[in-house]
Amino acid sequence: MTAEETVNAFIAACERADLDAAIALVADDIRYENIGMNVIEGAAATREFLGFLTGCDEVEWVVHHQVADDRVVMNERTDRFRKGEQWAGIHLMGVFVIEDGKITEWRDFFDVKEAVSQLGALG
Amino acid sequence: MTAEETVNAFIAACERADLDAAIALVADDIRYENIGMNVIEGAAATREFLGFLTGCDEVEWVVHHQVADDRVVMNERTDRFRKGEQWAGIHLMGVFVIEDGKITEWRDFFDVKEAVSQLGALG
Repeated sequence: MTAEETVNAFIAACERADLDAAIALVADDIRYENIGMNVIEGAAATREFLGFLTGCDEVEWVVHHQVADDRVVMNERTDRFRKGEQWAGIHLMGVFVIEDGKITEWRDFFDVKEAVSQLGALG
Repeated sequence: MTAEETVNAFIAACERADLDAAIALVADDIRYENIGMNVIEGAAATREFLGFLTGCDEVEWVVHHQVADDRVVMNERTDRFRKGEQWAGIHLMGVFVIEDGKITEWRDFFDVKEAVSQLGALG
């Protein structure tokens, strides 16, 4: 898989809340950061953090733009999460660094205050 | 110039606080947004907003990663601004859409609270 195909598969797995498939695509020593919010180190901690996806009734990460080279993938997305009738949406940009077919670095950038407000409204 | 060369030239002009050179690279109807902070429409308003660069003693936009296709450029940067002895730094991602050699869309994503705090400390 190319770097971009790896990220596409990772996003698709997150949308399905398929944690096994998602974590299969990250390196054991992944460094995942939500800038201004938290830093998550390692595949196990990443899996634990992504566990919130399984608590959603629907997850949709809309990719507005994506560009990539053979090692770095960047996208502009709206990550959407539904619980019951309520949707939350976070407009963000993400950067992924891929080595040997695994995601070793992942950073998402967004307005933290707005994201906390959106996710808080989901309950 | 390629889309990426256009963005590289734009960033270099911003670092020199050369507003003439910067604005020559944006479309008349550019839409420039600092997500969660403000939306700036048009070249004249963009020039006015970028006027704060001329009030800095030094401007350095460090590009950590950048990827591009023929129309879209994305980068992860630390935008640094110095007044006197004081530096402010904002870790962010930006997306630029280029049409006919001009920047028509520019969006920067960062933690707004942290950015306001950093820039506020510059005075």
